[in-house]
Amino acid sequence: MSNSFGKLFKLSTFGESHGKAIGGIIDGCPAGLQLDLKAIQVELDRRKPGQSTIVTQRKEPDQVEFLSGIFEGKTTGAPIGFIINNTNQKSNDYSDIKNTFRPSHADYTYDKKYGFRDYRGGGRSSARETANWIVAGAIAKQLLATIKINAFTSSVGTIFLEKPYQNLNFNLIESNIVRCPDESYAKKMIQHIKEIKKQGDTVGGTITCVAQNVPIGLGEPIFNKLHAQLGNAMLSINAVKGFEYGSGFCGAKMKGSEHNDAFNTDGSTKTNLSGGIQGGISNGMDIYFRVAFKPVATLLQKYDTIDKDGNPVSVQGKGRHDPCVVPRAVPIVEALTAMVLADLYLLNKSTKI
Amino acid sequence: MSNSFGKLFKLSTFGESHGKAIGGIIDGCPAGLQLDLKAIQVELDRRKPGQSTIVTQRKEPDQVEFLSGIFEGKTTGAPIGFIINNTNQKSNDYSDIKNTFRPSHADYTYDKKYGFRDYRGGGRSSARETANWIVAGAIAKQLLATIKINAFTSSVGTIFLEKPYQNLNFNLIESNIVRCPDESYAKKMIQHIKEIKKQGDTVGGTITCVAQNVPIGLGEPIFNKLHAQLGNAMLSINAVKGFEYGSGFCGAKMKGSEHNDAFNTDGSTKTNLSGGIQGGISNGMDIYFRVAFKPVATLLQKYDTIDKDGNPVSVQGKGRHDPCVVPRAVPIVEALTAMVLADLYLLNKSTKI
Amino acid sequence: MSNSFGKLFKLSTFGESHGKAIGGIIDGCPAGLQLDLKAIQVELDRRKPGQSTIVTQRKEPDQVEFLSGIFEGKTTGAPIGFIINNTNQKSNDYSDIKNTFRPSHADYTYDKKYGFRDYRGGGRSSARETANWIVAGAIAKQLLATIKINAFTSSVGTIFLEKPYQNLNFNLIESNIVRCPDESYAKKMIQHIKEIKKQGDTVGGTITCVAQNVPIGLGEPIFNKLHAQLGNAMLSINAVKGFEYGSGFCGAKMKGSEHNDAFNTDGSTKTNLSGGIQGGISNGMDIYFRVAFKPVATLLQKYDTIDKDGNPVSVQGKGRHDPCVVPRAVPIVEALTAMVLADLYLLNKSTKI
Amino acid sequence: MSNSFGKLFKLSTFGESHGKAIGGIIDGCPAGLQLDLKAIQVELDRRKPGQSTIVTQRKEPDQVEFLSGIFEGKTTGAPIGFIINNTNQKSNDYSDIKNTFRPSHADYTYDKKYGFRDYRGGGRSSARETANWIVAGAIAKQLLATIKINAFTSSVGTIFLEKPYQNLNFNLIESNIVRCPDESYAKKMIQHIKEIKKQGDTVGGTITCVAQNVPIGLGEPIFNKLHAQLGNAMLSINAVKGFEYGSGFCGAKMKGSEHNDAFNTDGSTKTNLSGGIQGGISNGMDIYFRVAFKPVATLLQKYDTIDKDGNPVSVQGKGRHDPCVVPRAVPIVEALTAMVLADLYLLNKSTKI
Repeated sequence: MSNSFGKLFKLSTFGESHGKAIGGIIDGCPAGLQLDLKAIQVELDRRKPGQSTIVTQRKEPDQVEFLSGIFEGKTTGAPIGFIINNTNQKSNDYSDIKNTFRPSHADYTYDKKYGFRDYRGGGRSSARETANWIVAGAIAKQLLATIKINAFTSSVGTIFLEKPYQNLNFNLIESNIVRCPDESYAKKMIQHIKEIKKQGDTVGGTITCVAQNVPIGLGEPIFNKLHAQLGNAMLSINAVKGFEYGSGFCGAKMKGSEHNDAFNTDGSTKTNLSGGIQGGISNGMDIYFRVAFKPVATLLQKYDTIDKDGNPVSVQGKGRHDPCVVPRAVPIVEALTAMVLADLYLLNKSTKI
Repeated sequence: MSNSFGKLFKLSTFGESHGKAIGGIIDGCPAGLQLDLKAIQVELDRRKPGQSTIVTQRKEPDQVEFLSGIFEGKTTGAPIGFIINNTNQKSNDYSDIKNTFRPSHADYTYDKKYGFRDYRGGGRSSARETANWIVAGAIAKQLLATIKINAFTSSVGTIFLEKPYQNLNFNLIESNIVRCPDESYAKKMIQHIKEIKKQGDTVGGTITCVAQNVPIGLGEPIFNKLHAQLGNAMLSINAVKGFEYGSGFCGAKMKGSEHNDAFNTDGSTKTNLSGGIQGGISNGMDIYFRVAFKPVATLLQKYDTIDKDGNPVSVQGKGRHDPCVVPRAVPIVEALTAMVLADLYLLNKSTKI
Repeated sequence: MSNSFGKLFKLSTFGESHGKAIGGIIDGCPAGLQLDLKAIQVELDRRKPGQSTIVTQRKEPDQVEFLSGIFEGKTTGAPIGFIINNTNQKSNDYSDIKNTFRPSHADYTYDKKYGFRDYRGGGRSSARETANWIVAGAIAKQLLATIKINAFTSSVGTIFLEKPYQNLNFNLIESNIVRCPDESYAKKMIQHIKEIKKQGDTVGGTITCVAQNVPIGLGEPIFNKLHAQLGNAMLSINAVKGFEYGSGFCGAKMKGSEHNDAFNTDGSTKTNLSGGIQGGISNGMDIYFRVAFKPVATLLQKYDTIDKDGNPVSVQGKGRHDPCVVPRAVPIVEALTAMVLADLYLLNKSTKI
Repeated sequence: MSNSFGKLFKLSTFGESHGKAIGGIIDGCPAGLQLDLKAIQVELDRRKPGQSTIVTQRKEPDQVEFLSGIFEGKTTGAPIGFIINNTNQKSNDYSDIKNTFRPSHADYTYDKKYGFRDYRGGGRSSARETANWIVAGAIAKQLLATIKINAFTSSVGTIFLEKPYQNLNFNLIESNIVRCPDESYAKKMIQHIKEIKKQGDTVGGTITCVAQNVPIGLGEPIFNKLHAQLGNAMLSINAVKGFEYGSGFCGAKMKGSEHNDAFNTDGSTKTNLSGGIQGGISNGMDIYFRVAFKPVATLLQKYDTIDKDGNPVSVQGKGRHDPCVVPRAVPIVEALTAMVLADLYLLNKSTKI
């Protein structure tokens, strides 16, 4: 498996949903960074289950414990090892999923690839893994203190927040449980998720992320392009189906004369359809992108599927799942963005003599 | 810079638009592969400039020369070094771009990142680099002979090919110069590009790619997910602004009960909104995705910009550029797809004992 | 920092001598390997402090706890996370080493490189880290069950075991506390270490390692040569100053007509000065090499040094340290050998089509 | 195959002895370095065949041609592609080596690993590859202009230069053809090689290398230790059997009280048995190490071996080979040393915030 991300600021992770613990190692964080450990836990709390009525009601405190790499409050340059204990592994009855393949899950592909799988709670394929990413992202955020990274829910199902991000107040993102910085849209989204939940169904959505105050020059021009790394990161999140930055898919409909970003004399641009990135390298303008999440595959409905031997079976979905993954994915998007920027920031240190 | 792609099947490249040559090294191709060198050149010819009336009229034969790694027609396991000479570096007058920054190009960011730049023809930021990718992709295709990879133009500007790929005949892709396998749409697209060209303008578009007959089990479940690597690859192509696979951004509007792919008893699925990938791993169904290209930034119009010292200047765009990058990008999308699959195919060899 | 080793069979580690725990992640171990967890602990016990009278008397059980990647006794293909708690971090008085630099230790270089250091027990520079390697090596040994890896003490100070390894019985390695498979030499070595210990001094030594039954073809011919990776690994062990394989430094005195290994008709060789490796690739003969360890730098004597401000200070060495690192390093040499071979074994799976 | 070396300052290479060309890509060299191209060719000339009476008489100019990454005399940050044409591939009669395995060569292991091999002149296993390393090393030297790297022949067969390096004048290294900076020893060595050559035999030797003025702090403390990377590099050179640094194998015989390097008040040390490296990190003192080369396996004598089918055959060695590889390996040792230091120098840029 490939369980590491980043070249210089590198996270390696481990852990299954229902093992003893998940955790990771952050290697390459420069020495001398004064860490705010509470701020890291705050990020974890933004992702944790059970935080509101529209997310899974599983209770899991997601308390991170650091084991190394920090001394007298500062990073030492040594790898930062951490674990997050799994406290909610009740002796579940997994007979339903042990021998059957849930549609649009990783059950079938894991079994085919590895020969068998740890089926408890999804095992390694569980989105629980993303808690590890939050930890690394929170440290990356502190490393990049001057960069502001804000993600928010920009659609739930067909409810689209139809305002440019410039007209939004990012301080309102955390003011509601769906993490949409427009109160009126937020209400509609929350209402919609609650209805979906009642039906035992799930719904998709999109997250928009904006990184501001990014230094000019981050990103490698050929194979480690800033947006390619962002896309790579976002497409690593469970349930993500698409990524676009700047003008994105809309840009593909446009003409060059409409799309080009004219310069101001200070090197900034009058428009920003480039999304803050030109030739794979940040140009100092806002970086913004959008991520599409499919609806969660786990339904609390009856469904037909097959078992390991290819026999048709009918299963009653049960358990505690997110009707919409988007609200909890907001901090994940931010965390990965921070990790990508941190890595490219360090890589950029050897660009010039 | 980061100029390598892939972990086991790895391409490293070099070269500027107007240097002596571009080229690369393919490391990790297994020994014993009988290579069809003509087929590699055919792929290069699909990408080369001057091939039709709707692409740049620059003449460049793009003849690949292999320097190593092949013996008696077969790969030896040694790295495959190759070069493609640049034959069209006429002693251009670069005074226009030498001291000014073209809007939405990499000029400004390169200068800021590296302190200066090889401005001749775009230097390293030129899409000429993608010829190197074609070579590696063509070899990857031969390594994965049973996998069928077909990309085609699915939109130009606002002209969308509104047919599911299952209803298309991929044999028609090469039957027209825009590489759209539907004759009627192809005509409209070609017509549109010609009009755009007359205006000295450019237009964006999208490419859809379908990989068929992919073995089950390719892709790593956490950080080297099949679709994340595809996205990473596609977002490395010049002018790409977005990537989606399977249901993509549409999937974000759907409900789980609509989106899940029910199983047939043989493990295949009745629908394929998953796009052939579940949990980051191929499930044996068709893999399909869509890539958005912005309009080329180089216009043959007069435009306002700034010079290196921040002075406003007015420039008359000139030269030989693609009015729409999409037709020539079709083989690039295929090449990168093949490279990603080849790498994951080799990685998968050590999955099980 | 660089805290990962291996390309496909990859260990990433963390942990300081006196933090909460050390640990690591083994990524890339193939799925389906039935693990003998007791055998892993046995290897840790071979390395642990306090195991005999000639090693440090620090008491530390070095109990490994696996957190992931193993299900129903078998590896799942998911990363194997593990921790080893530090149980012996008494609230030491570190004032001696906090502000002074111990000669020939890493104190000075860490401070200069990172700006400060976790001085408790040597922090990250402590050989405690090698317990992590033992865990990964023990798993690698199980993956390579048919390969036999035996390391032993071949010299302590000027006492050299002057017998070719072919004349030794590897079953006797663990029969004495110095891990020399010749009883008579073992006694002399043990006696010498005891004398050195009484003086508050330390002594160096060498370890010889033999890997038998290695499949033909492991190792990459240019930059990942089998012996280069072994050397790289061995030189990562604390206190190692030299590495030689096959004829080693003696070979440098020889003539080609003496040194060449003539073939038998089955492809084996009559002699084995090559040390089982030709052109960086295993040839099926025994692989053997020798590793030189300097004397441990920590003395229980009074010594002169400087403090952080460059003032001369006199320090009385104290604590519990190894008079000779070699006996405890024997399992470390084996562990790293197994890790290198496991990695090259997996890499070799994609050598041929 | 693994044909790349370095993490940030990275060389990837290709090429066989008798193919069209060898070459490589240097990725990660910072932008803005003014290159002295003549100085690079001078290094190549130090390695090239035919340079004196005691090396192979094969004539090969080894002229490097740069294809990219350099503009107006300076590195641009883009990858530096280069080739060295093979001009001496006469239509040799390879029937001798085509179907037989030369003892102590890579013939047998290549055939077993890859299924077949490019047998012409040794193919990929030829030391011709090291010319590529010279190019990268020469650029690394220019990047690290303040560091002085000097390697020299310290023994040929049993003739040992028995003087500490501090008593040698490095300016004399190039004053004789064996590259020993002591005239009297040099004469003896040259004489010995000439005798060996007359016998159609070969002889081994050692090279000592000294790197002076290395900044404090280079090297990673766990898995990318400065000396481990040096050892890894040196053991990649054809014919190398051993590596030791600082006190090396002699250190293994010593006591700690003899071996520790006491500090001066400025942080330098009174002795330097550590070889300029403590805890894997440079301490500012001279780095010195020694490399053992076995005698070249190719003899101009008759020898017995086997063919591909395991039949015994008798072969008359012929051709143009080095009776002693050491004189030509001196610049190779320097080149790899420079590459290792350049890589660790760049890695060190992100050590501290």
